[in-house]
Amino acid sequence: MRLVVLNANTSASMTEAIGQRARAVAGPATEIVALAPTWGPASVEGWLDAQLSATAMLDRMVGWPDHFDALVMAGFGDVGREALREVLDQPVVDITEAAVMMAQLIGHRYGIVTTHGRARSLIEASLRAAGQFERCASIRALDMPVLSVAEDWEEVGRRFRDEVGLAVGEGAEVICLGSGALAPFANALADMVEVPVVDGVAAAVALAESCHQLALSTSKVGAWATPTVKERSGWPITGP
Amino acid sequence: MRLVVLNANTSASMTEAIGQRARAVAGPATEIVALAPTWGPASVEGWLDAQLSATAMLDRMVGWPDHFDALVMAGFGDVGREALREVLDQPVVDITEAAVMMAQLIGHRYGIVTTHGRARSLIEASLRAAGQFERCASIRALDMPVLSVAEDWEEVGRRFRDEVGLAVGEGAEVICLGSGALAPFANALADMVEVPVVDGVAAAVALAESCHQLALSTSKVGAWATPTVKERSGWPITGP
Amino acid sequence: MRLVVLNANTSASMTEAIGQRARAVAGPATEIVALAPTWGPASVEGWLDAQLSATAMLDRMVGWPDHFDALVMAGFGDVGREALREVLDQPVVDITEAAVMMAQLIGHRYGIVTTHGRARSLIEASLRAAGQFERCASIRALDMPVLSVAEDWEEVGRRFRDEVGLAVGEGAEVICLGSGALAPFANALADMVEVPVVDGVAAAVALAESCHQLALSTSKVGAWATPTVKERSGWPITGP
Amino acid sequence: MRLVVLNANTSASMTEAIGQRARAVAGPATEIVALAPTWGPASVEGWLDAQLSATAMLDRMVGWPDHFDALVMAGFGDVGREALREVLDQPVVDITEAAVMMAQLIGHRYGIVTTHGRARSLIEASLRAAGQFERCASIRALDMPVLSVAEDWEEVGRRFRDEVGLAVGEGAEVICLGSGALAPFANALADMVEVPVVDGVAAAVALAESCHQLALSTSKVGAWATPTVKERSGWPITGP
Amino acid sequence: MRLVVLNANTSASMTEAIGQRARAVAGPATEIVALAPTWGPASVEGWLDAQLSATAMLDRMVGWPDHFDALVMAGFGDVGREALREVLDQPVVDITEAAVMMAQLIGHRYGIVTTHGRARSLIEASLRAAGQFERCASIRALDMPVLSVAEDWEEVGRRFRDEVGLAVGEGAEVICLGSGALAPFANALADMVEVPVVDGVAAAVALAESCHQLALSTSKVGAWATPTVKERSGWPITGP
Amino acid sequence: MRLVVLNANTSASMTEAIGQRARAVAGPATEIVALAPTWGPASVEGWLDAQLSATAMLDRMVGWPDHFDALVMAGFGDVGREALREVLDQPVVDITEAAVMMAQLIGHRYGIVTTHGRARSLIEASLRAAGQFERCASIRALDMPVLSVAEDWEEVGRRFRDEVGLAVGEGAEVICLGSGALAPFANALADMVEVPVVDGVAAAVALAESCHQLALSTSKVGAWATPTVKERSGWPITGP
Repeated sequence: MRLVVLNANTSASMTEAIGQRARAVAGPATEIVALAPTWGPASVEGWLDAQLSATAMLDRMVGWPDHFDALVMAGFGDVGREALREVLDQPVVDITEAAVMMAQLIGHRYGIVTTHGRARSLIEASLRAAGQFERCASIRALDMPVLSVAEDWEEVGRRFRDEVGLAVGEGAEVICLGSGALAPFANALADMVEVPVVDGVAAAVALAESCHQLALSTSKVGAWATPTVKERSGWPITGP
Repeated sequence: MRLVVLNANTSASMTEAIGQRARAVAGPATEIVALAPTWGPASVEGWLDAQLSATAMLDRMVGWPDHFDALVMAGFGDVGREALREVLDQPVVDITEAAVMMAQLIGHRYGIVTTHGRARSLIEASLRAAGQFERCASIRALDMPVLSVAEDWEEVGRRFRDEVGLAVGEGAEVICLGSGALAPFANALADMVEVPVVDGVAAAVALAESCHQLALSTSKVGAWATPTVKERSGWPITGP
Repeated sequence: MRLVVLNANTSASMTEAIGQRARAVAGPATEIVALAPTWGPASVEGWLDAQLSATAMLDRMVGWPDHFDALVMAGFGDVGREALREVLDQPVVDITEAAVMMAQLIGHRYGIVTTHGRARSLIEASLRAAGQFERCASIRALDMPVLSVAEDWEEVGRRFRDEVGLAVGEGAEVICLGSGALAPFANALADMVEVPVVDGVAAAVALAESCHQLALSTSKVGAWATPTVKERSGWPITGP
Repeated sequence: MRLVVLNANTSASMTEAIGQRARAVAGPATEIVALAPTWGPASVEGWLDAQLSATAMLDRMVGWPDHFDALVMAGFGDVGREALREVLDQPVVDITEAAVMMAQLIGHRYGIVTTHGRARSLIEASLRAAGQFERCASIRALDMPVLSVAEDWEEVGRRFRDEVGLAVGEGAEVICLGSGALAPFANALADMVEVPVVDGVAAAVALAESCHQLALSTSKVGAWATPTVKERSGWPITGP
Repeated sequence: MRLVVLNANTSASMTEAIGQRARAVAGPATEIVALAPTWGPASVEGWLDAQLSATAMLDRMVGWPDHFDALVMAGFGDVGREALREVLDQPVVDITEAAVMMAQLIGHRYGIVTTHGRARSLIEASLRAAGQFERCASIRALDMPVLSVAEDWEEVGRRFRDEVGLAVGEGAEVICLGSGALAPFANALADMVEVPVVDGVAAAVALAESCHQLALSTSKVGAWATPTVKERSGWPITGP
Repeated sequence: MRLVVLNANTSASMTEAIGQRARAVAGPATEIVALAPTWGPASVEGWLDAQLSATAMLDRMVGWPDHFDALVMAGFGDVGREALREVLDQPVVDITEAAVMMAQLIGHRYGIVTTHGRARSLIEASLRAAGQFERCASIRALDMPVLSVAEDWEEVGRRFRDEVGLAVGEGAEVICLGSGALAPFANALADMVEVPVVDGVAAAVALAESCHQLALSTSKVGAWATPTVKERSGWPITGP
């Protein structure tokens, strides 16, 4: 199958790293195509960023000419999941939903450790909308900018261990990495702590493969039915 | 005060009608400026439309050069409320929240009658995110396109009476008009039924005036703090 | 319009102060009539007080001979909202609901700072019954008697700053003053802290004016339908 | 033990009938004292009635000179439970809570059949406040006045069978009689249907005896702590 | 009446102690028969134990030849309540439900103090399934093995006082003993603290007597209907 | 990987059919071992059956001598998930959770069509305990015995189409097959209706493979920590 992994921001290096992470976990029959929006925020750290990113991701996929079998949305807590599901027939797997679904199979309550504190209201809103918030024990943040994770690895490690410890104290039995930026470091982070760690990118790749395996595609009866044809002036913003 | 009433779609006639409705209920000291996005869907009837509209509304306000005191988002059930509150310091009043808040002051449980069925999942999601869904008894639809309301008034009246009757049977004690397109006809619709009818545009104008009266502006502590300065390439889409 | 602001307790000085606060925020076309029950507790600090106050407020309004357009219930967390809505045709706006509705327009989660700790169970019960509790982050108390607020202003200020700080730490982005007794000091209290402060009396005056502006009155279909005519011996307790 | 069964209305015949019902189920060591308020509504059929009744019940118990061990509040869905618990040290058992607690021991989901439709919002509010609503499958009404039950027994039976059938269709596995007025006919009603029937008066008598048996009295730590001593002018309304 | 009190574990001394506790609170007309499973865990301290215990309790009752009127399940937070209700016609009262029902009659929010921490997820699951979790303020543990309670009484007392204090700080107004092993010491434990203490065994005995008093038996309409006759090989595990 | 698919009942033909279904969807590197309990009910149709089955499944796995990498519990709505997760280190995937997780990726609200009505309370309880019930629109039943599905295929098809139509009318956008007995017919059933159909056995196989792919195993911190070593007399019931 051909699986598009769509970064939420325009950072080429993060797109590359997320693509590598996806390839590392994907099955042998899966071709990973890592894409990024052609415009929008360099990192998603709040509602404005998430809103722009959602439209830029829509824009990217509507303008994408090639065949693909499923889409992974690689921004944790980002908005736009419903619109992508409406526009596409292929399954759309959000790393937020994917991470906590896999986590709930292996722990009764899950925690999330994200990069920066202002992601929290986005993550909570995304999980509530997905009906997946009830077993959430804790959402904590490293309080570091998304794009600095790769640059200050020692500090990331120190803070990660601290926040995981606090999350476990609040009842978490498994930890989800709450940012696409942490995905490339998933194995190293998992080695630092005693509880299982779920990376949303890996989880979403596996679930997208599962959808393909079961021949499931998005229901077009109800909330995510194909949009009606009508005038939408100025869109797509960057034509195919 | 100067109050911007921002239509969610690009229809000039609906923008004009919503502006007139707002002027009809506003206080004498309120200047209404009716705006529409410069691009986007001609009507909002699903998640794609709502997503594009949200970005186009952001785009419109960031490019708006003049002073204003508060903003009314005039799309019922639309997305983008949080991003506008993050970007602006002025109060942002969504007609969805506004309608049901006013309705809950005068009836124990409220119903919503919207234009077309596919708005339902948007409206429910918006009200759940706002913590205002618990007292909702019913969401029903006329099953007519947004832009045809003005053209087939007799049919609108017939269906409205039917749907209000069914909503009351489900427990609604007050009815909210679930579409900006119905706002201009609020008085005529209210005359057709025995239960009170709340028009979200009128409700939002009154609540925006109330915010101004109480000198309240959006909290910048927490979820809606001002966005960080960073590169957001390609945005605003239409420069100031 | 003529707006009755009904104190929940019999304290003449608090009735006067609440009336002044209401006049300070009301529009130029609003006449404020500040009333108090003719019997009942000198301050409302628990369920017995709230219960007696509810009946004394009913008694007061049934015995009130003059025209009025809307009623503000000026006791925070008090009981009796439903019975007043049943008895009256005019809109009844409770300062509890009003405060948190306005607060939710400008902050994602709200906190409440009340005077004394035993008000907490009343406030929580009132907000749950109103379907407005979901976005509550914190209810905290100054732990001072209602009637001593005016007398020990320095201590009030010190404790208010402390409790607001703790509420913000629990996630509050906007603070509601949880007592009619704090309303007269709303501006001074708001100046002490960085987050927006909403005074329920001011909020309720604005929402009552909004109801009048939109020509909304209490729905008589369902929960708050006019009481049947029957024998209710010994009532009203103090005849008209 | 001496158990006060307090009718919510002033009807002497209903007080007598409720007292007889209580005696029929009470243990041999239980003395039943059936009381009614000295003022208030002849029947409780809405929020005004419930509010007056709550104060009249408080009034009655504060003026009651004799020893007693526990109190049963015999109005289904009525208000005032918290204030009575605050004022008294003895256990206070509400027939609303009592009925559904016993029902939940013998059926997974319960239904309620009350006399008149406007009791529904009171009953739902009472059960939600008590944290006992989750397993409620149905609240239905005979749509007959409270005081006419004894007079039109054939019609009561016909409607009761119909409403129980509809409640079972909605998922009820056990039926609670939703009115003190139905309590005296509990055995006859139970014989009419296939599902178990719980009468709140009987349930409350048994639970009050259970509290006595276990030496439990109302917690004075928290919500129901003894009221502070203060001026409450005009109260009690009818002195001891 | 004859009331079977069924211990969840095979400990003869605990069965004896629970039986004595039951006899101490039961009415004079109640004969207590204390039973234990003939196989299974020596103490119930997790999901495996609870699962085995549930089947062993079923096994015990199906093999029980004598008449009885009601059953008390004496394991706190244990599983198997629904299956016993399905199999038996007599009322089945679980000490978990019973404790918190009685507690909610005398305190607005309840806390639970259990023996060991791993019981917490069982207790929470049991209360959620029973629709009785909403008013739970706190679940705390002594962190001592179930079977060591009787042996280290001084340590139990010290820890109990500490945990009750913390539970009250979290909002509990009444404390439930969260383990059948604590039931025999209920009076001594209650004397140690200022808040009321409810022992589930005593509560369940009283509620089972109440069911008998009201002639209530398990509804066979719906979830707990009598099992169909079919092949269940190898069961009962220990024949009658 | 070696994946054990554990039937909940003792029917050899169903075990065989479920194994075949699992093999049909599993990846090429997955070896499926289909097991059944050695004792217990021939079909699971209520709480007694589910309870026995849970213990018999535990018994089977504790006595299983060979290596395996993950376990699929193949009874829809059955109990015992938590105990198996406690006892095993390998991931345990329940077809109930698995079906609705996959369904929620492709439809906003899901429905369930099971074989017989009495499974409904089991299914609802299982989904609530898993925190996966919020997006459930409908649970419906064919009202046919589990073991007769294969024998009366025409009737199954007719009823399935009817029940799916009713579920869609209640808001379902995707249908989960609510019984392991329906799994072998998943493709034929999916072809009968317009909405996507998810078979829990297939979903669980895919999720178990995903756990293996991501190297996730059950968290031993918290609710599902390894059971303590202690005496559990008479268990395992059938020794290794």
